[in-house]
Amino acid sequence: MNTSTIPHHRLLARTATFSRLPAALCPHSSPFTVRMSLSETAPSLAVVGVTGAVGQEFLSVLSDRSFPYRSIKLLASKRSAGKRITFEDQSYGVEELTPESFRGVDIALFSAGGSISKEFGPVAVECGSVVVDNSSAFRMDENVPLVIPEVNPEAMAGVKLGKGGLIANPNCSTIICLMAATPLHRRAKVLRMVVSTYQAASGAGAAAMEELEQQTREVLEGKKPTCKIFSQQYAFNLFSHNAPVLSNGYNEEEMKLVKETRKIWNDMNVKVTATCIRVPVMRAHAESINLQFETPLDEDTARDILRSAPGVVVIDDRNANHFPTPLEVSNKDDVAVGRIRRDVSQDENYGLDIFVCGDQIRKGAALNAVQIAEMLL
Amino acid sequence: MNTSTIPHHRLLARTATFSRLPAALCPHSSPFTVRMSLSETAPSLAVVGVTGAVGQEFLSVLSDRSFPYRSIKLLASKRSAGKRITFEDQSYGVEELTPESFRGVDIALFSAGGSISKEFGPVAVECGSVVVDNSSAFRMDENVPLVIPEVNPEAMAGVKLGKGGLIANPNCSTIICLMAATPLHRRAKVLRMVVSTYQAASGAGAAAMEELEQQTREVLEGKKPTCKIFSQQYAFNLFSHNAPVLSNGYNEEEMKLVKETRKIWNDMNVKVTATCIRVPVMRAHAESINLQFETPLDEDTARDILRSAPGVVVIDDRNANHFPTPLEVSNKDDVAVGRIRRDVSQDENYGLDIFVCGDQIRKGAALNAVQIAEMLL
Repeated sequence: MNTSTIPHHRLLARTATFSRLPAALCPHSSPFTVRMSLSETAPSLAVVGVTGAVGQEFLSVLSDRSFPYRSIKLLASKRSAGKRITFEDQSYGVEELTPESFRGVDIALFSAGGSISKEFGPVAVECGSVVVDNSSAFRMDENVPLVIPEVNPEAMAGVKLGKGGLIANPNCSTIICLMAATPLHRRAKVLRMVVSTYQAASGAGAAAMEELEQQTREVLEGKKPTCKIFSQQYAFNLFSHNAPVLSNGYNEEEMKLVKETRKIWNDMNVKVTATCIRVPVMRAHAESINLQFETPLDEDTARDILRSAPGVVVIDDRNANHFPTPLEVSNKDDVAVGRIRRDVSQDENYGLDIFVCGDQIRKGAALNAVQIAEMLL
Repeated sequence: MNTSTIPHHRLLARTATFSRLPAALCPHSSPFTVRMSLSETAPSLAVVGVTGAVGQEFLSVLSDRSFPYRSIKLLASKRSAGKRITFEDQSYGVEELTPESFRGVDIALFSAGGSISKEFGPVAVECGSVVVDNSSAFRMDENVPLVIPEVNPEAMAGVKLGKGGLIANPNCSTIICLMAATPLHRRAKVLRMVVSTYQAASGAGAAAMEELEQQTREVLEGKKPTCKIFSQQYAFNLFSHNAPVLSNGYNEEEMKLVKETRKIWNDMNVKVTATCIRVPVMRAHAESINLQFETPLDEDTARDILRSAPGVVVIDDRNANHFPTPLEVSNKDDVAVGRIRRDVSQDENYGLDIFVCGDQIRKGAALNAVQIAEMLL
């Protein structure tokens, strides 16, 4: 892949337009495409938080993957109710989320924040819906599977369509990290991981992406940058992740990596530390990951393992200095891994350094949730 | 410090103007300031590479610190010869660098790239000059001290004014890392460090800063970004450091951290790994540093040690989510440290995570070199 051929305009075009022109997000929305996904025998869907960045991406991914559905309900807060959204050539009215919204819904994809999930998730389950929840509300609940389909599909074995149930989507940083680390973990068992993240604006929602764009324009014009979402200048700057800092000095984002990894790998002994940083990039996260193994794993074997891992692409061209970048993985499904090398600070082949990039909205959120939903079919 | 009070315009103002309006970089250039630094008994100076980003900052730092000098010679390539630069209210013509340039020069500050240092550094020494070299040319030469004045001033004990000699300025990432790590190392001995960097455009020179600004404007206007310095889009993106990748998979920037740390700490056993990433920030680097100690060091003690460390400022307000940022340290002398916390992935108090920011051009290059020169006085 040559980065110079990437349509760079998409970066900002998507940002500026995605709440106004959602149809533009759906590559399959041409009227000449035969729609196989709308089927009377398929499940009925609901998307909760449809006007948000991830909500919009749910629609895009459902369409891209021709997810079969009998009907789809687009749910959001009262403020957004009545808006029209075109999905697969059909115009839908956004409905206000209420406890009655889930009657007859088989699968509900939630991405409207933790408090909405806490309030309406159990209601949906009570109605017989299977909820795939993108918030952190239920992730650490021991009765709720926390699933990356390529990593631990077995965790959702007990959840069946029609019976109601909750499945949690891991945090974006965890998904992107474990997509790369898990294939290596399976071979050589990861004892410890040191993760430093380079996180995009999208993790804080569509408004944060717009704020980054607006601030950048302002700074270039010599104006004071407008700070609404974040408390400080984001353009041409970076800062410690804005999640609340806990009493142990880690912020919540970092502890998600620590705790979710243990749960997803079903390994309470794996040691993880993380430093999460927000960088002025639009929609894809990067992570520098240092791994320590129980058994030796040389870098060539690691590269081969990653090359054959589902959902992973290896970009690791040392001669061309071509490695994963956020821009290159934006709007892509696969997580890209590169800079795969023996860690010179550890005993030979007991450690590796890798660098990983993944689209935060897509595999980090919407795609992973839709993949979970696909496993219910 | 409240970031909202920082004059954010300086970020780009400095970028856009520094090669055209160097006098604007000198806070002491008011005609009403009494100049104490120009003195008949002081050393004669030469600045090699004066038109570059670091060369300009040499002048700024010399002036800020009222460095005493009898005369100053501004040297650059033939292309820049004849340009006029105002320094401390005096206009100087830029002279072409030749082997004759160093006659009568006591201290020569070099920042014109490794090949210029290799060619002209020994010539200057032969002329009796003490060379403080900002390039990587001599850093790993065992006869050349590699010095951070706050860290290992003893290394330059043998170098005296008038006798000729070479002192190497460490790489910017190493300086910023070790400014924070050394005070902790002195107390608890660092056994291993895992470093992930967030490096600014300035490390690749003034033209790279201009490219980042230009690309950002282009992307915001929906245009294809101009890639001259870097081979790929930098605006709203990040990428593995552009230094050549070595056969072990590390790039040269990363191996500088590994090797220079050993030399500066005079500890061939310290284990370091690094992943160096270029982020779209103008002039200050950030580093996420994971430390493993020989003896326990709790986070409160670490914070106290750092608070009293010279050249270090602690910004570590968990309640306000206020930690170091590149913007906040830009144009500042001190290296800022925050996110100081016990590493939950290591045995209690045997590990810490910290996050460090430092101005790449200032402490990462020009300031450190001028501090070295001050030790010769």
